[in-house]
Amino acid sequence: MAAPLISHVGIAVEDLDAAIARYRRLLGVDPAHVIDVPDQKVRVAIFRAPGFPGGRIELLQAMSPDSPLARYISKRGEALHHLCIYVNDIGQKLAELKAAGFELIDESPRIGAEGNRIAFVHPGGANGVLLELEERQGTDLPAK
Amino acid sequence: MAAPLISHVGIAVEDLDAAIARYRRLLGVDPAHVIDVPDQKVRVAIFRAPGFPGGRIELLQAMSPDSPLARYISKRGEALHHLCIYVNDIGQKLAELKAAGFELIDESPRIGAEGNRIAFVHPGGANGVLLELEERQGTDLPAK
Repeated sequence: MAAPLISHVGIAVEDLDAAIARYRRLLGVDPAHVIDVPDQKVRVAIFRAPGFPGGRIELLQAMSPDSPLARYISKRGEALHHLCIYVNDIGQKLAELKAAGFELIDESPRIGAEGNRIAFVHPGGANGVLLELEERQGTDLPAK
Repeated sequence: MAAPLISHVGIAVEDLDAAIARYRRLLGVDPAHVIDVPDQKVRVAIFRAPGFPGGRIELLQAMSPDSPLARYISKRGEALHHLCIYVNDIGQKLAELKAAGFELIDESPRIGAEGNRIAFVHPGGANGVLLELEERQGTDLPAK
């Protein structure tokens, strides 16, 4: 079940369309898709290299002023928002981290935007980084 | 020359040894290596998935109080510091970005910590993200 360490990086942006235009030029690819995640009140543009499910860049725009992302931007401005890493068995990893004293935002996995099992770790235990764990889905080897 | 979009993410930390211990547990792997980059006055611990050169996580500690990274941490605290993306031809990409009005920190490529050609783009043009460009070196397909 090979995969790079990084599933994706999330970037908090104010104007998704403008940010997509900018990152299209920076990355040299179009977003693979743009999806709404009502659960977290964000709209997400997902950039990935063809054939590579991992190592994605996701631009996040708040869907309403009461979105946690809107509060983040009003405090910190646009910025790198979170880092998502792959784990093999998310239930086991959460138990291991809890036992080691990490502060978990999600004590048990929930279902992420793309149907995979995810959980967040508090930035306090990860050197200021809001860390998302994502359970690997089969292999992440690039498609041929 | 396939590769994921993300070469690596850099995380600014105060105490590298403590951060290595934390990320070893979070990521489930040991750092592949720890190197000094005197040019930028930082010590870097590099985590990567076996066989995947891309999608790395790099922990950065200032080597002296006058390191730009030390100033960053004194202002912002520990945090996600920069995002490095792969580009095919870094000279061409810099010219294209300059023509499009992006503010470049490096107008021409320089040699990065691992011998590859890199350049930084100002966060002002990338939604608050300090963006590093890294020229792909051959293929980044995972090793068999």
